[in-house]
Amino acid sequence: MQTSELETPVPIVDFNIAKANIGRLQDYCDLHRIALRPHIKTHKLPFFAHEQIRAGAIGITVQKLGEAEMMAYTGITDILVTYNLLGVAKAERLARLTHLAKISVAIDNLSAVDWLALASKDAKTDIDILIEFESGGNRQGVQSPEAALELARKIRTHSGLRFRGLMTYPTTAASGEFLRSAIPLFNGADVQLEVISGGGTPSAYYNHELAPITELRAGTYVYNDRMMMAAGAARLEDCAFTILATVVSRPTGDRAIVDAGSKTLSSDQLSPGQGDGYGLLPDYPDATIARLNEEHGVIDVSLSKRKPEVGERIRIIPNHVCVVTNLHDQVYLHSGEEIIAKLPVSLRGKTV
Amino acid sequence: MQTSELETPVPIVDFNIAKANIGRLQDYCDLHRIALRPHIKTHKLPFFAHEQIRAGAIGITVQKLGEAEMMAYTGITDILVTYNLLGVAKAERLARLTHLAKISVAIDNLSAVDWLALASKDAKTDIDILIEFESGGNRQGVQSPEAALELARKIRTHSGLRFRGLMTYPTTAASGEFLRSAIPLFNGADVQLEVISGGGTPSAYYNHELAPITELRAGTYVYNDRMMMAAGAARLEDCAFTILATVVSRPTGDRAIVDAGSKTLSSDQLSPGQGDGYGLLPDYPDATIARLNEEHGVIDVSLSKRKPEVGERIRIIPNHVCVVTNLHDQVYLHSGEEIIAKLPVSLRGKTV
Repeated sequence: MQTSELETPVPIVDFNIAKANIGRLQDYCDLHRIALRPHIKTHKLPFFAHEQIRAGAIGITVQKLGEAEMMAYTGITDILVTYNLLGVAKAERLARLTHLAKISVAIDNLSAVDWLALASKDAKTDIDILIEFESGGNRQGVQSPEAALELARKIRTHSGLRFRGLMTYPTTAASGEFLRSAIPLFNGADVQLEVISGGGTPSAYYNHELAPITELRAGTYVYNDRMMMAAGAARLEDCAFTILATVVSRPTGDRAIVDAGSKTLSSDQLSPGQGDGYGLLPDYPDATIARLNEEHGVIDVSLSKRKPEVGERIRIIPNHVCVVTNLHDQVYLHSGEEIIAKLPVSLRGKTV
Repeated sequence: MQTSELETPVPIVDFNIAKANIGRLQDYCDLHRIALRPHIKTHKLPFFAHEQIRAGAIGITVQKLGEAEMMAYTGITDILVTYNLLGVAKAERLARLTHLAKISVAIDNLSAVDWLALASKDAKTDIDILIEFESGGNRQGVQSPEAALELARKIRTHSGLRFRGLMTYPTTAASGEFLRSAIPLFNGADVQLEVISGGGTPSAYYNHELAPITELRAGTYVYNDRMMMAAGAARLEDCAFTILATVVSRPTGDRAIVDAGSKTLSSDQLSPGQGDGYGLLPDYPDATIARLNEEHGVIDVSLSKRKPEVGERIRIIPNHVCVVTNLHDQVYLHSGEEIIAKLPVSLRGKTV
């Protein structure tokens, strides 16, 4: 079956580009003796998790327990959950999961420690804990090396929990600054930092310059997208994931409507100044996806010399591929134009 | 089971509010002798489609053939597809579907007519056709009454196709203007307009003033959301759909992190001037969901006198509920705080 035979709108993944992306970041990590622990939030596929591990990754990163469960159920045995897991239900699920895979959890507060301690009572083995710290993401994380050390000491009072080190997102110059204070502080307190985990595709190839990390979590690099191109982290030829859409209407000379709207492409936009619209059109570089309704994409073709016709297929590189895969029940893997697999996105919607 | 026992993040639907919403619009339509044909894009649930029909709706509206199929498979027998269906695969699927339900299709171009004619050759019955016209949505639709009449004449040359009338989205003053030209033009040409279909929740209760429509397609009214509140089409107490989230971190005094990010709430925003942030927080009216990562919501609580604590549950009314339901595999129906059903969102992801 050829890509041209697929009904649209449809997500397709170029297997060769994805494999090259996986290999390139692994080579970088190997060169700098950084352990690679890919974040699977982008592909949400056991298939690519196993590909990444075969290429040399030490395990995977997930954001949610439901993602960890699906990955453990499909044979992944080393999983870092970078999320505060609160409540008795999650503690019980986490404990069960330790029977199937080695689980680490990154947290940033005492309440999370208490729930992990509860989980550890039923767990098969100790649960490894990292502490998340703030390094400019303004999301979560402890705010100072001193707060990190205090939390580490609390973790060490629980017999079933094993403090392993620190984690941040994204890796930035601020990560380096934090660590230059934290490392001597922890050393002086005789609290070992076995793991320092950094993250993010945009800065992936600069981690060795930014901060003394031992482990890299990156997700988007497997597919790349228009945001990664805007960040200078990928070229068009590194983008493995495409939405194939069809022009369903040409109501005016300047407007083409495609069958891909916000339920296919998401409403994620680039940062101001990085580019307009809801996706990149490699075949129509002068056109802009000006607006999305749920199932309609409104393309402004006023600047395009050649205008697309009704029935024509159009390729779209998404702005932010991680949220786009999460809209689709399956992706088609292709080599050249031949379809080689229909992969169920089995972690799709696993937000809990 | 109580809503408080659900793991978060989780979408819950207040059954009584949804039923009242369904009843209120049905009453309006009955009063003005407008047929109601609800758009199921919002709930994507056979359950509520049947509720709407029991309340008096004449059938349903869907955007995609995959949605039509799932609805026909669950007992809905009158379905309007408001989409240009192109290509042999869709023609074959459409033909098959006519064996299960009465299908109408709204289209705006000749290529769509040709594919429908192909479908009609295999269909069990004639396929009813509406012509979509432009009325300010700047999406698709023929641009003039004359173009509509020309297309209607083409449709009437095909024996398996039955031209039924006109359709537009949204219903606006421009719809009225278009129709004031179109109706005499069609009458003069002896082409009957049995159906004039208007749409949209924001203007739902003004359709009788805006344009001489015979049928109303509205979707969002079943749940409502922050956009409908901003449009003056709903009050907070009319919002049936809520995301329950948990505060997982309080990294600073001014920031609370919840376990609902863009993979739970979508990135849809209100129009400029209508409101900031990624959802409404009824329990924290002075707080703003300032930023979303995929699985994190960053809430600015700097203006809140009472600040949420780690572990606390927070209710979120989504900005745009139609894309939010499409992110979730199930929704929980509740009456008061009691869970009365877990409904699989069986039309979720049916973009093809």
